[in-house]
Amino acid sequence: MIEKLINVAAKREKAELVLKNARYVNVFNGKIESGDIAIHMGKIAGIGSYSGVEEIDVANFTVVPGYIDGHVHIESSQLSPEEYASLIVPRGTTTIVADPHEIGNVCGMPGIEYIAKASENVPLDVKIMLPSCVPATPFETSGAVIDGAEIERNIDSGYIYGLAEFMNYPGVIGADPDVIKKLEAAQKSRKVIDGHAPTVVGDELNAYICGGISTDHECVENSELEEKLAKGMYVHLRHGSSTRNLVSNSKSVTASNMRRFIICADDRHAADLKEKGDMDDALRTLVRSGFNPIWAVTIATLNTAEAYGMKWKGGIAPNWTADLVVVDDLENFNAKYVFKDGKMVAKDGKPLFDTSKRYLPEDVLNTVHVRDVRPDDFKYEINGNFVNAMTIKPGNIVTGSEVVRVKNIGGDIDVSGTDLLKLVVVERHGVNGNIGKGILKGYGFRGGAMGITIAHDSHNIILLGDDNASMARAVEELKTIGGGMVIVDSAENRTYSLPLDIGGLMSSKAAESLQRESKALIERAYSMGVDREQEAFMSLAFLSLSVIPKVKILDTGLFDVDKFAFMPLEAEEGPKNKVVVNVKVK
Amino acid sequence: MIEKLINVAAKREKAELVLKNARYVNVFNGKIESGDIAIHMGKIAGIGSYSGVEEIDVANFTVVPGYIDGHVHIESSQLSPEEYASLIVPRGTTTIVADPHEIGNVCGMPGIEYIAKASENVPLDVKIMLPSCVPATPFETSGAVIDGAEIERNIDSGYIYGLAEFMNYPGVIGADPDVIKKLEAAQKSRKVIDGHAPTVVGDELNAYICGGISTDHECVENSELEEKLAKGMYVHLRHGSSTRNLVSNSKSVTASNMRRFIICADDRHAADLKEKGDMDDALRTLVRSGFNPIWAVTIATLNTAEAYGMKWKGGIAPNWTADLVVVDDLENFNAKYVFKDGKMVAKDGKPLFDTSKRYLPEDVLNTVHVRDVRPDDFKYEINGNFVNAMTIKPGNIVTGSEVVRVKNIGGDIDVSGTDLLKLVVVERHGVNGNIGKGILKGYGFRGGAMGITIAHDSHNIILLGDDNASMARAVEELKTIGGGMVIVDSAENRTYSLPLDIGGLMSSKAAESLQRESKALIERAYSMGVDREQEAFMSLAFLSLSVIPKVKILDTGLFDVDKFAFMPLEAEEGPKNKVVVNVKVK
Repeated sequence: MIEKLINVAAKREKAELVLKNARYVNVFNGKIESGDIAIHMGKIAGIGSYSGVEEIDVANFTVVPGYIDGHVHIESSQLSPEEYASLIVPRGTTTIVADPHEIGNVCGMPGIEYIAKASENVPLDVKIMLPSCVPATPFETSGAVIDGAEIERNIDSGYIYGLAEFMNYPGVIGADPDVIKKLEAAQKSRKVIDGHAPTVVGDELNAYICGGISTDHECVENSELEEKLAKGMYVHLRHGSSTRNLVSNSKSVTASNMRRFIICADDRHAADLKEKGDMDDALRTLVRSGFNPIWAVTIATLNTAEAYGMKWKGGIAPNWTADLVVVDDLENFNAKYVFKDGKMVAKDGKPLFDTSKRYLPEDVLNTVHVRDVRPDDFKYEINGNFVNAMTIKPGNIVTGSEVVRVKNIGGDIDVSGTDLLKLVVVERHGVNGNIGKGILKGYGFRGGAMGITIAHDSHNIILLGDDNASMARAVEELKTIGGGMVIVDSAENRTYSLPLDIGGLMSSKAAESLQRESKALIERAYSMGVDREQEAFMSLAFLSLSVIPKVKILDTGLFDVDKFAFMPLEAEEGPKNKVVVNVKVK
Repeated sequence: MIEKLINVAAKREKAELVLKNARYVNVFNGKIESGDIAIHMGKIAGIGSYSGVEEIDVANFTVVPGYIDGHVHIESSQLSPEEYASLIVPRGTTTIVADPHEIGNVCGMPGIEYIAKASENVPLDVKIMLPSCVPATPFETSGAVIDGAEIERNIDSGYIYGLAEFMNYPGVIGADPDVIKKLEAAQKSRKVIDGHAPTVVGDELNAYICGGISTDHECVENSELEEKLAKGMYVHLRHGSSTRNLVSNSKSVTASNMRRFIICADDRHAADLKEKGDMDDALRTLVRSGFNPIWAVTIATLNTAEAYGMKWKGGIAPNWTADLVVVDDLENFNAKYVFKDGKMVAKDGKPLFDTSKRYLPEDVLNTVHVRDVRPDDFKYEINGNFVNAMTIKPGNIVTGSEVVRVKNIGGDIDVSGTDLLKLVVVERHGVNGNIGKGILKGYGFRGGAMGITIAHDSHNIILLGDDNASMARAVEELKTIGGGMVIVDSAENRTYSLPLDIGGLMSSKAAESLQRESKALIERAYSMGVDREQEAFMSLAFLSLSVIPKVKILDTGLFDVDKFAFMPLEAEEGPKNKVVVNVKVK
């Protein structure tokens, strides 16, 4: 291998492939340079004047290194890893650092292994991070527990690249013993530990970093970002579907700190990947905002490779991995060709690899182990007439709470004729049959029930409705289809659903058919009253995310994230018999 | 450990040490920042407002990360690793990447292990690179051979950090099978491979880098440097005693490529270390030349750490190694305090550690295994009256050659009354008793012999003289003292010598006494006629370095470096009976 490459570089042998007359971004000196790029056995052999067995003239294009997404949950696309690759590789992403946190919560280590093995079917380099926080908090019921001992057992597995985002930042700052065990295992094996510490600054940030955590992708304020960077962290510019701090955070980039910026998608929906793109869309967006295009490319390639210790990746030079994107220009970043390990794997936005292959082990199928439910299971027994309702702002996964008056009909709450809905989480991992109950204000749905088996982060069933029978029927349907999304229309007496057969999170179908079906279901939810500023099902999926303020619903009950403790559903009437409205919404 | 550090960062426990009111160089954002630096268990726990069990007010100083020398041969100081550390640590160098190439050539792997073990006596982090080219060429006799198989056996040893400078660049470019074996072994174990490729550019450079070689410290021309950098190499600014391209090469540094520059000493004499300094002198020199001081610090710290894959080193931030230098300012870089792993190890330029410890295993002592020699062994039998003489320019290790007329006295050459000297290399590793013979023009010594057991790179005895008896006597003396430097004065009939007891290369004495004695011996050499523009003994030591053009003397004979082949001592008379002078001197 080495000998062959040297022989090609020295022109004693012909290169397999030469990109003739290339104009390329040199991330080492920040210049646009030119030459023929000789490619052999997956690597760049040389740049200069070369001839190859195959030659492609790229004179009218610009060559950039393949993009590296530093942190992404494939599951958020609701696509299999194979189908995910078929969307992003043609866009120019050739490497991702994947955190299979969602499937880890449902299936444990077999779910993580599934992502690794499925990824082998496609020409995308998938670095698997071992989820660090399964479950996200000890307060809820997940399908699996990956504790310190489990991390110790698995961190050195060949397919594990590092320890994934440490979301339990209070646990790190507080030096929780099981957290320490996880961090120690990762440090011992010299693995990268990803961070996730929204709003954490000052001494607490010092403490967090002392866990050996070297990246963060949760910066909201630029001052927070700049402090994290100053304290040695690599900081992600994030270009997710919901959370996009790319452009605002990019205002902190200077010539002196540019090398410490990296990039990620975090969570990106199939529709965005298909219609807008992936890292290419991030670059386009940055450059359109006035950002230096060479910096943009460097951040998405060399910097991310360095942050994650990927050698010989992210640059165009001899002996570097031949992951290359041939784009029209550094403004539009439209990928004409994509090369992975020296092979052309996409052309004109279309994958050139088999996109129909699916690795589908039993472990990740049939994961809805929910108990039989009856309408009576959704009765709400309270004593008085006031409850702590959850409130939700459109486009924001941060929730609030408000004390509201409800109609207590004796042994149940009747939400009909109000802007309130029953919101429940039904445990679906076959552990305890819990049903956590809350009241949601202002979502807008009426006339039945809707639910989904994606409910961050434990992925139980999250379900809302205004009649108990529909709610029970929705659960039954989700059980029948093996996980997915469901709407029960009580007026029509009909059930509409879409299976997400892989862990109840992802579909084994092609992106196109999944999108078509899911669009129809989402439209039905809107037609049944869901506020169009909500994301119908996906906004629902975040109402159980117990690491995001302020009040969330878990299978174990209503949870106050700020206090990190449960709170009662039933509220005391406020002083002087008035309804107390809690206005402190972050 | 992790827990303790977090507790200190979060102020639940007191730090062992706090540098109060620190002004420090933040290499992550290129700013000067301030705060208390809390240090605990060898790491920085946090920067902010901290109190410690011990506190040192550094308000009037500037704190920078400990310097990292990216490539150095400790042997060039002629000091033991312990004594070497006692000179450089008080200057602020806390980590070095050491290539024990010289002792490797004499003692093989035991010599390399010696450097590693001796380094454990001192608070200096010594990363040991496995010498890649022992012997430097297959044409000479060294004390050891470290071939591909030996590299394979040792590259994964715990104390080996990487593969040292690959000087055999023709072997890499030509894909020599044993060279490939070495490169493959290093790549397989994911080790850094250092480069050494003077003047190599173009396709040959592509080929060289395809060996997996990621650094170079041999750039002379800036165009060469810029090409190497553009091709993905980290480029060393070198601040050696003889070879200093620091300032001239630094003219190539820009904001866009700065991150790819690193720094090294390569070869630095004890006198320079003592009088001028080490990396601190490099920084001083750079800044005085107008170089950005923050860039200078970054190059000597974070950049070098990144190039060599040292995690959590080279920066001042939470969880980073507490290797710190407290300097007066960023102009003079005078070190007030030096901290290694959080401990104060030097103050006011003086080491605070035991400098008298020496690890001295049998393996590296008594290494002069030379055969008994008689004056007749130094007779030169030639047929005609012309020889290819070596020529030497002061201050330059590149040599030339010239055809000169000699006095053939039948069975010997008489150099008396000329500007010619006999120059020989006597094999001293107990292998074959070779004596390679040459004629040196213009060195200036007269009236006896002088020699040294440092003779790059195989470190046989290199010896010059104008009478055979003195030359034989010089060899006997070197044998008696176990290696070192010698002068025989035939007029006085006296011998003067200085032992270099460690491998015939280094002294186990303290720097001061070695310097005093060596100064006296050097002065004697000058008084016997050595051109004062030469370095007396050290210029001699490079006349056998067969990888530097143009003509060198080996134990096996006269060697044409450009042709990479032996050349005869005896020359044909030139056309028309004139003396042919070869003027092509690089």
